[in-house]
Amino acid sequence: MGSAAYTTSSRLLFRQLFEKDSSTYTYLLADTSHPDKPALLVDPVDKTVDRDISLVKELGLKLIYAINTHVHADHVTGSGLLKSKVPGVKSIISKASNAKADLFVEPGDKIIFGDLFLEVRATPGHTVGCVTYVTGDGPNQPQPRMAFTGDTLLIRGCGRTDFQIFSLPKDTLIYPAHDYKGFSVSTVGEEMQYNPRLTKDEETFKNIMANLNLSYPKMIDIAVPANMVCGLQEVESKAL
Amino acid sequence: MGSAAYTTSSRLLFRQLFEKDSSTYTYLLADTSHPDKPALLVDPVDKTVDRDISLVKELGLKLIYAINTHVHADHVTGSGLLKSKVPGVKSIISKASNAKADLFVEPGDKIIFGDLFLEVRATPGHTVGCVTYVTGDGPNQPQPRMAFTGDTLLIRGCGRTDFQIFSLPKDTLIYPAHDYKGFSVSTVGEEMQYNPRLTKDEETFKNIMANLNLSYPKMIDIAVPANMVCGLQEVESKAL
Repeated sequence: MGSAAYTTSSRLLFRQLFEKDSSTYTYLLADTSHPDKPALLVDPVDKTVDRDISLVKELGLKLIYAINTHVHADHVTGSGLLKSKVPGVKSIISKASNAKADLFVEPGDKIIFGDLFLEVRATPGHTVGCVTYVTGDGPNQPQPRMAFTGDTLLIRGCGRTDFQIFSLPKDTLIYPAHDYKGFSVSTVGEEMQYNPRLTKDEETFKNIMANLNLSYPKMIDIAVPANMVCGLQEVESKAL
Repeated sequence: MGSAAYTTSSRLLFRQLFEKDSSTYTYLLADTSHPDKPALLVDPVDKTVDRDISLVKELGLKLIYAINTHVHADHVTGSGLLKSKVPGVKSIISKASNAKADLFVEPGDKIIFGDLFLEVRATPGHTVGCVTYVTGDGPNQPQPRMAFTGDTLLIRGCGRTDFQIFSLPKDTLIYPAHDYKGFSVSTVGEEMQYNPRLTKDEETFKNIMANLNLSYPKMIDIAVPANMVCGLQEVESKAL
């Protein structure tokens, strides 16, 4: 289960940020040992872009990437607003998502910021383009590793996952895109043991997922079209 | 500003937990290197006690203390329920609070769990009995240190503080009892530089605080009497 409090690294600055209406986590990562202090945001939300920009500024960071784990259905990504408000920021999403962005990543790619990097792992199922971003393995990279799982693996819950995540070391810290119960972090080992869905065999899992009787997501008709174009739906429709 | 991602220690297990209705943070700390894995909760909330007990159990910990930073006005403490549901748990609050609890602490006291401890610092103002719990200084204790500030110092905000907290090292991590903007952690250095209230001179500060025009706290008439008796108001009134 690992006894470390949290990941540590001599150079990683890490902040977990929360958007209450959609219970979304946004993660700020930066290499503070690099002269530029390059930073990235994972799963930014449109409503909290000003808070995030202000924090980046206060911490003396240079935001270079706005990254999404997938095309979200429950909130509008902040990528577009970040690009319009912070010159030089590039948006990133998986190629398999078919969404618009400045850069597209594929499984195995590395997203480099200073001397740190995130690895891209394909974790389709919740959406076909879902990826998990995992901090690098190697000297100067954070230990234990951190996995930004989006909606693929939630703490004691899940979207759908193809179990790529469970091949990571058991002490890997799990940072999901949402939490509805007030948890903030978990580990691969804990989820293998206590996740109520993923500890079941395949058939039971399929039954659970087929019988969730979820209501239609209230933001989906606004969020998905907007997120396919990086959160800049109005700009796009005017430009078309 | 410090470049560490988060505190690390070979023996501290740390989890930040959130209660959405009151935007309250509860903190779980445990010494996982000790054979008993003794654990404590700082500022537990009555509504999320079952979640917290379940997590403690899953992590194989032994909960020994339920600790409050002060008598809260916006939510009912979980101390009473924890005591009734988990045998052996002792509640702790400051002597200056005049509230009921199993153990009372005073400035300079240490709350020991395994080989780790919290120091008690008096930070009156928001309430007369407010204290800040700070992780120990010494071998095997977490570095940088962590300060659980309750409502005395919020991230980029505050209740009232007598500035005891700013005498801590600048890289000390600030863990408040609430956050209304989605932040989860800050540092002493950041708050000295960017806190909109505490960067002002004394007179300006007094003016700001006198003119907040805050509405009457909606939970105060329920929460304060309940929290004065450890969250067991009904049991107490029947016993009287």
